Amino acid sequence: MAKTPYIVIIAGGKGERFWPQSRTACPKHLLPVVGDKPLLAQTIDRVKPIAPSKNIFVITSAAQADAVRKVCKGIPAANIVVEPVGRDTAAAVGLAAAVVGARDPEGIFAVLPADHVIHDAKTYQANLQAAFAAAAKAPVMVTIGIPPTEPATGFGYIHRGSVWKKVARREVYAVKRFVEKPELKVAKKYLKSGDYLWNAGMFIWSVPVVEKAFAAHAPELDAGLAKIRAALAAGDALPPVLKKLYPKLVKISVDYALLEKSDNVVVLPATFDWDDVGAWPAVARHFKPDEAGNVSRGSVIVEDGSDNIVFSEGKHVVTVLGADDLVVVHTADATLVMPKSRAQDIKKLLPRLAALKNGRRYL
Amino acid sequence: MAKTPYIVIIAGGKGERFWPQSRTACPKHLLPVVGDKPLLAQTIDRVKPIAPSKNIFVITSAAQADAVRKVCKGIPAANIVVEPVGRDTAAAVGLAAAVVGARDPEGIFAVLPADHVIHDAKTYQANLQAAFAAAAKAPVMVTIGIPPTEPATGFGYIHRGSVWKKVARREVYAVKRFVEKPELKVAKKYLKSGDYLWNAGMFIWSVPVVEKAFAAHAPELDAGLAKIRAALAAGDALPPVLKKLYPKLVKISVDYALLEKSDNVVVLPATFDWDDVGAWPAVARHFKPDEAGNVSRGSVIVEDGSDNIVFSEGKHVVTVLGADDLVVVHTADATLVMPKSRAQDIKKLLPRLAALKNGRRYL
Repeated sequence: MAKTPYIVIIAGGKGERFWPQSRTACPKHLLPVVGDKPLLAQTIDRVKPIAPSKNIFVITSAAQADAVRKVCKGIPAANIVVEPVGRDTAAAVGLAAAVVGARDPEGIFAVLPADHVIHDAKTYQANLQAAFAAAAKAPVMVTIGIPPTEPATGFGYIHRGSVWKKVARREVYAVKRFVEKPELKVAKKYLKSGDYLWNAGMFIWSVPVVEKAFAAHAPELDAGLAKIRAALAAGDALPPVLKKLYPKLVKISVDYALLEKSDNVVVLPATFDWDDVGAWPAVARHFKPDEAGNVSRGSVIVEDGSDNIVFSEGKHVVTVLGADDLVVVHTADATLVMPKSRAQDIKKLLPRLAALKNGRRYL
Repeated sequence: MAKTPYIVIIAGGKGERFWPQSRTACPKHLLPVVGDKPLLAQTIDRVKPIAPSKNIFVITSAAQADAVRKVCKGIPAANIVVEPVGRDTAAAVGLAAAVVGARDPEGIFAVLPADHVIHDAKTYQANLQAAFAAAAKAPVMVTIGIPPTEPATGFGYIHRGSVWKKVARREVYAVKRFVEKPELKVAKKYLKSGDYLWNAGMFIWSVPVVEKAFAAHAPELDAGLAKIRAALAAGDALPPVLKKLYPKLVKISVDYALLEKSDNVVVLPATFDWDDVGAWPAVARHFKPDEAGNVSRGSVIVEDGSDNIVFSEGKHVVTVLGADDLVVVHTADATLVMPKSRAQDIKKLLPRLAALKNGRRYL
């Protein structure tokens, strides 16, 4: 690989699914949901062997910017790019292309989520290197697809076709199409076929390839992005440029705006472990349970109960007696108790919390 | 009623069943489990119209003494009697007779638990007055029995006989026998018969009647109590006397030592409301539930759940999502989560709490 690659980590997230640990200003990627460091810090650690710190960017929101800066020690301050408002993933990718393009108009960069759990960093890095090599070889949009292990309905899928090229001894496949989150029945079919991969939001491509895709498939958004690119080329400081132009960008996902419409998408099936740890119950997979299947952190007692997830903070002791399959999470100012099966409904609590006296403190 | 009566409130309890609110040094009677004041304070308020403060005694344990003194504002310091160690209820009643007897060898006194919930104070006071009148009329041991509302297996029962006397327009019954906590099948029979009352630990009698009963039915214990009486008669200070003599007293319940063996026991059926609020689920009876049957105190949100009891302290918010029939109690240093049905098993948590690092702080 000739050119030094760039990495753009998208550190978004609303901080809902891991409430009460996660908050608007402290979503999942800023928490050590699994491991001892925030997931964002773990993500940066994983890519550092591939790209120098000056080539690593983090795109985040205004609410999270301060906390993100604290986590991103060693990353140049100018590389922490703050969206003044959220405009969905297509705008974020366009912004990523703009900031990378301002450094190197031919630059190749990866867009990576900040909040996934990947233990096997070495294999991950080798996969990324192969993806960068593919993106250097041809004007393609490379994705890394995750071989599905269950008929998940919470992910989009990538339908792979035949082998496009062998790169770095890995087979990279042509992509037939991107499909949105399927019904369970359809997901089961996908799983069985073996031709579908989970879309984990990992994209590797060059600045020109991304710019061409925007111009071809999202011209309105591209026009807005062009103004940002022009301001950067003129040497304007980024924050005021974004403050003025970013809120006007079309709000659309990158999957829908670009990937579903492009015919130059290829996919590298991941060979590393991967978990997006989408909600509290998923956390249990990364902890050593006790003999009754309970997973805990902090000062916790489970008496005569099984398969619970119980987290406490500080010296506060949380006791669960005679209950199964619960999630119990205690933080300094809030406690959540729910059956694991209700983890997707945490968002129902948020308006009720907001309605409490001074309730926004809990969000 | 000629003589001004004495009241002796037994403020014992181990502080287990309402953990984490209750602790060894702060059992149920020191908590506002129901209402705005500790149950002990409510008990004192209820008896004040019957007896002047100088005639009200409280017997408590060393661990609880400081907290009891704080709650017993207005009661003379000398009337707070501290057992150096617990020696069960017969010793406590003997001690009560000794301290009342030191004031008035013919004194009539009531022994009352500190931790029952009674809302109708006026009727309660009228019942107590009738019991005092009965105890003044004849050398009997008067009990106030609670008409059972369910086949409870957690209480002893009083089998009443025919009417002994009419006192203060109330029928007082002879007692056929005291029976210990029955099996459910037996309790159902008792309930159906209409001749059984719950033994709520409320006794009204004179000092000579109690002393005679000890001499007749518990001579060994009486010998120990005689030394305490003699020391008090000699003007010795109570605490050193108790420190020396109390630990040597026979440990036995007053029901077993005296009441089951005496033939001069009579019973006045209570006409006031009564609840011993034996464990967390019983608390719900005294709160106004929301439309889903949830009962709460403090900053609490229950979303899509029913019949839960959820208590929080301070600004900490406790949220329960999609769960039913739970007890969730949050305090400054501990949280308990359990199904209501497991309330009797809280004691299983205590050794596990004690085994934590510095775990005794939670007891």
